[in-house]
Amino acid sequence: MPTVSPQQQAEIDAQRANTTSTRRATVATLEEILYQPLPVLDHGFVRVIDYMGDDSAVVQAARVSYGKGTKKVNEDSGLIKYLMRHWHSTPFEMCEIKYHIKLPIFIARQWIRHRTANVNEYSARYSILDKEFYLPAPENLAKQSAVNRQGRGEVLDDKQAQHVLDLLREDSERCYRGYQEMLNENESGEVIDPKQDGLARELARMNLTLNYYTQWYWKVDLHNLMHFLRLRADAHAQYEIRAYASCMMETLQRWVPLTYAAFMDYRVGAAHISASGLALIKRLLQGEKVTQETSGLSKREWLELIEVLGINNAA
Amino acid sequence: MPTVSPQQQAEIDAQRANTTSTRRATVATLEEILYQPLPVLDHGFVRVIDYMGDDSAVVQAARVSYGKGTKKVNEDSGLIKYLMRHWHSTPFEMCEIKYHIKLPIFIARQWIRHRTANVNEYSARYSILDKEFYLPAPENLAKQSAVNRQGRGEVLDDKQAQHVLDLLREDSERCYRGYQEMLNENESGEVIDPKQDGLARELARMNLTLNYYTQWYWKVDLHNLMHFLRLRADAHAQYEIRAYASCMMETLQRWVPLTYAAFMDYRVGAAHISASGLALIKRLLQGEKVTQETSGLSKREWLELIEVLGINNAA
Amino acid sequence: MPTVSPQQQAEIDAQRANTTSTRRATVATLEEILYQPLPVLDHGFVRVIDYMGDDSAVVQAARVSYGKGTKKVNEDSGLIKYLMRHWHSTPFEMCEIKYHIKLPIFIARQWIRHRTANVNEYSARYSILDKEFYLPAPENLAKQSAVNRQGRGEVLDDKQAQHVLDLLREDSERCYRGYQEMLNENESGEVIDPKQDGLARELARMNLTLNYYTQWYWKVDLHNLMHFLRLRADAHAQYEIRAYASCMMETLQRWVPLTYAAFMDYRVGAAHISASGLALIKRLLQGEKVTQETSGLSKREWLELIEVLGINNAA
Amino acid sequence: MPTVSPQQQAEIDAQRANTTSTRRATVATLEEILYQPLPVLDHGFVRVIDYMGDDSAVVQAARVSYGKGTKKVNEDSGLIKYLMRHWHSTPFEMCEIKYHIKLPIFIARQWIRHRTANVNEYSARYSILDKEFYLPAPENLAKQSAVNRQGRGEVLDDKQAQHVLDLLREDSERCYRGYQEMLNENESGEVIDPKQDGLARELARMNLTLNYYTQWYWKVDLHNLMHFLRLRADAHAQYEIRAYASCMMETLQRWVPLTYAAFMDYRVGAAHISASGLALIKRLLQGEKVTQETSGLSKREWLELIEVLGINNAA
Repeated sequence: MPTVSPQQQAEIDAQRANTTSTRRATVATLEEILYQPLPVLDHGFVRVIDYMGDDSAVVQAARVSYGKGTKKVNEDSGLIKYLMRHWHSTPFEMCEIKYHIKLPIFIARQWIRHRTANVNEYSARYSILDKEFYLPAPENLAKQSAVNRQGRGEVLDDKQAQHVLDLLREDSERCYRGYQEMLNENESGEVIDPKQDGLARELARMNLTLNYYTQWYWKVDLHNLMHFLRLRADAHAQYEIRAYASCMMETLQRWVPLTYAAFMDYRVGAAHISASGLALIKRLLQGEKVTQETSGLSKREWLELIEVLGINNAA
Repeated sequence: MPTVSPQQQAEIDAQRANTTSTRRATVATLEEILYQPLPVLDHGFVRVIDYMGDDSAVVQAARVSYGKGTKKVNEDSGLIKYLMRHWHSTPFEMCEIKYHIKLPIFIARQWIRHRTANVNEYSARYSILDKEFYLPAPENLAKQSAVNRQGRGEVLDDKQAQHVLDLLREDSERCYRGYQEMLNENESGEVIDPKQDGLARELARMNLTLNYYTQWYWKVDLHNLMHFLRLRADAHAQYEIRAYASCMMETLQRWVPLTYAAFMDYRVGAAHISASGLALIKRLLQGEKVTQETSGLSKREWLELIEVLGINNAA
Repeated sequence: MPTVSPQQQAEIDAQRANTTSTRRATVATLEEILYQPLPVLDHGFVRVIDYMGDDSAVVQAARVSYGKGTKKVNEDSGLIKYLMRHWHSTPFEMCEIKYHIKLPIFIARQWIRHRTANVNEYSARYSILDKEFYLPAPENLAKQSAVNRQGRGEVLDDKQAQHVLDLLREDSERCYRGYQEMLNENESGEVIDPKQDGLARELARMNLTLNYYTQWYWKVDLHNLMHFLRLRADAHAQYEIRAYASCMMETLQRWVPLTYAAFMDYRVGAAHISASGLALIKRLLQGEKVTQETSGLSKREWLELIEVLGINNAA
Repeated sequence: MPTVSPQQQAEIDAQRANTTSTRRATVATLEEILYQPLPVLDHGFVRVIDYMGDDSAVVQAARVSYGKGTKKVNEDSGLIKYLMRHWHSTPFEMCEIKYHIKLPIFIARQWIRHRTANVNEYSARYSILDKEFYLPAPENLAKQSAVNRQGRGEVLDDKQAQHVLDLLREDSERCYRGYQEMLNENESGEVIDPKQDGLARELARMNLTLNYYTQWYWKVDLHNLMHFLRLRADAHAQYEIRAYASCMMETLQRWVPLTYAAFMDYRVGAAHISASGLALIKRLLQGEKVTQETSGLSKREWLELIEVLGINNAA
């Protein structure tokens, strides 16, 4: 099953074909992919629906904030780096982007915890959900991690992976049959048994499993988008939400390339070092030999820090 | 199965038995039920965990806002009514309450759309969900409404209701078996097959249906609590979330009785009348006979308005 | 002194002259005034800097939320009215607008209490504020209201008005001289006394009066813009902030005419009637003669209600 | 003039004398100072009015979030450190504190930019502001910084400091006289000239300077309080707001000592190192000699980094 139906793609193509003239800031590299579904997971997508502002809008807002003084001194890129480095978030709030996202419900439940966005979700009280559910690719079927209670370990072996996929598929399909039976309506929207009534949609939906796809419009400002991406494109995030975040990172790069570069340097590739960690680095820089035991750090913090510093063999 | 286990109840009792002295505002009627699970639906509950402020705190905050001048003029109840009537929301934001709620996932998905609260949800990435799922009481198994796409009609007949309950129970139980099999862990936390590995919890959870119970801590200020209750205790809200809202209405009454009274008068029992609706009321008050056709209102608005005005037979 | 300097107007004109092609929704009537300063008060302005979405974007977001089903049934205007009537706010959150506002500080202090917007303000820590302060027009110099502690009564007589204006002008000018002296810098940015040092800007600014103009970029979604306008374009709002709100009402009408029409009917011209008020209306509709004493309403509520109902002489 | 009047202190003492019994979490070290004005600047104060939760409430919320599993493994302090280190903010949102703050208007304007708090401010539309304005202590009268446009340099010499204080005092006092004259009301609340009318309070207030004191109730959750304190207790924050933040840091320590300790280690004393900065540290740790020119960092970043690392003479 493709990510969008041919009819949906036709609607998208029609919307893409329509252009007008505007006095607003426009970003050609983002317009290229406007409205196009960018595939994620087996049936999901990310579509950029609209945007407001560009890198210059960040600068423009910051300069109102700073007044005439800065105009000569800073170039755009330098100012954007400065703002990012010093956590001046309000200028980045002056840009806005709107996405249409199709995603499994259990991922939607993680995602919605970011409260600083606007959301309109497809309503299963009002409408009937399509028969589309997420099945992981075998290489993403990982064991429970033995060391991190909220993480994944190695990939399951082929046989067990197949068994898991069979279970997921069968239970998903069976639950959908129950859903249809309760609604008394088949996939073509026809009544199954005219002598029966359909259960209210708002009740029947409870029989679906959490891997069913839902969709929503999600609108967010640039600052909060980066906050979301920093957390969700991170290696500690669940693979499935990371897949969406990675896709959105590319839309960020198309939209605001200067901000994206600063974001990579000061957020994605950066590290937050505690006071204890800084004290340790100072000792190391002075040539002192330090072990975890003498570091003043807990074992876990020690491991995290030497990984950040790339010292496998701190001595 | 009871709403909480004996062990959980013992922890609650221990917490209830512990009292200290405080200089803070205290509300005896709310303390009576503090920590106690108030049952909702078949396995859910509402527990008040903590609170800050009382009716006087609303008044106190408003008087800072208004300064010395008001102290003589208004009594507390009058001031609270005034604030409510004129939508002065900030004094009500000065009180806070924290709940522990156990609720089905499909209801949690509605609830979380209220973004102005703080939430900590039980993590199924980290832990294993209990085998507890929601089955509606037969009298709540309603047909899809024929007139309102997002509503319920009459109750299903007994036979069909039984069939729906069977389907829900079987699919819920079967999905839980799949969940356990993928986790390779039984309800006692024992490994099922020592030669197999368990799938990561963050993946296995996707096999559960949306009627499984989750739980969270939910903290909100008094203003936003009332906003939530106004929408969710309303007759248009889905029955299942209304059951929680009704239970919380009682906690509101215990906590801030003056605010509760004003809330009932100016919000719950009140009506918002459009400019067109007001024009119609004026005509009616002048003795004019008005029908929907001459009212200037759409049919749906007309019906809503005459219901509010209690005129079945507007003439 | 004009609202913007000739140099600023030249920058605006250059920005207006620049157009590009876009696939996004575009609103020609709003583009007409894009970037142009719309004068407010004696030196203030409202400028629309950017926008995202139009009436169709509201409908589009709502239809994702409602699914395929609604496409045939509702037309855009009907759906927008429905959403407004039933307080479905999230579809309106899908449009965004960005303003550049120049306004007196004491009005900025009221304005900023609306927390659901993004703001970048001109920084008087970093830059020096211009010598521009607000002087009310004589017809806006009102007496303290005798009946409403937070309102205005009649206009001052000419002589007293002139005296007030003299006081305001003299104190504003004198404080600015003190500001310059402390900064040791004149209006052309030249050092006044080379043998002296300038006080830090972040300190010197405290000598300015609250009628000095500041400016900011202010970005808000359509839902929260309407919430702001409903409160601030209201007759109970202070005249000076109402002047800004009135100006912005026109930009709303240019931007989203269908939403604007629904907003006027269901918000601006509407009334919220309490349970007690509804009970009274029912009695009146049944022909009962009611006085304040028999109404069950307080005197103030009675007066508010008969004004809403247009019955001067309720009997 | 004392920070609070004898009458206000009497009201505070009465409130402090009143204790009740509660089942809620109580913090004795915070109760000690409850309601007491803690002086800040020349006439300002910080008063803790109410609080909800303690260190255990953070843990309690996190454990719902994490489920049964963590109970044995982590002790409270360890869990709090873990949450802080990994930016898990929601458990800290489960505690709340309410302050009464008296502060100069120009500081209130900075403060209010933190939008995630609840605020009720004393209304100068409704009431008359007292004649209390901020005059810096001479040691805080700093020159404009020559290197940082938004900072302070050295302290002014005595003579110039005295001149600045004279200017500030005279202009503040003169503006207050104008305020009273426009209001036609003296400090005792008596009419000055019975033949004149008073200008509306909402207008007269614009004649006051930005160093006049205002006051508000300010309520915030623990997470957002720490975010505020991290920015405002920082050396880059303006001295006057830092004075408030420092005072509130002590209330934080009294309230949640474990969280406070983690906050000091992972936020206040910590550093955020960019990807480029990390690369540099790795080179230094490998014994390479690096100068700013070979560091890949801008001069400003280089200076910031070597300050953080305590290497004056990086070689």
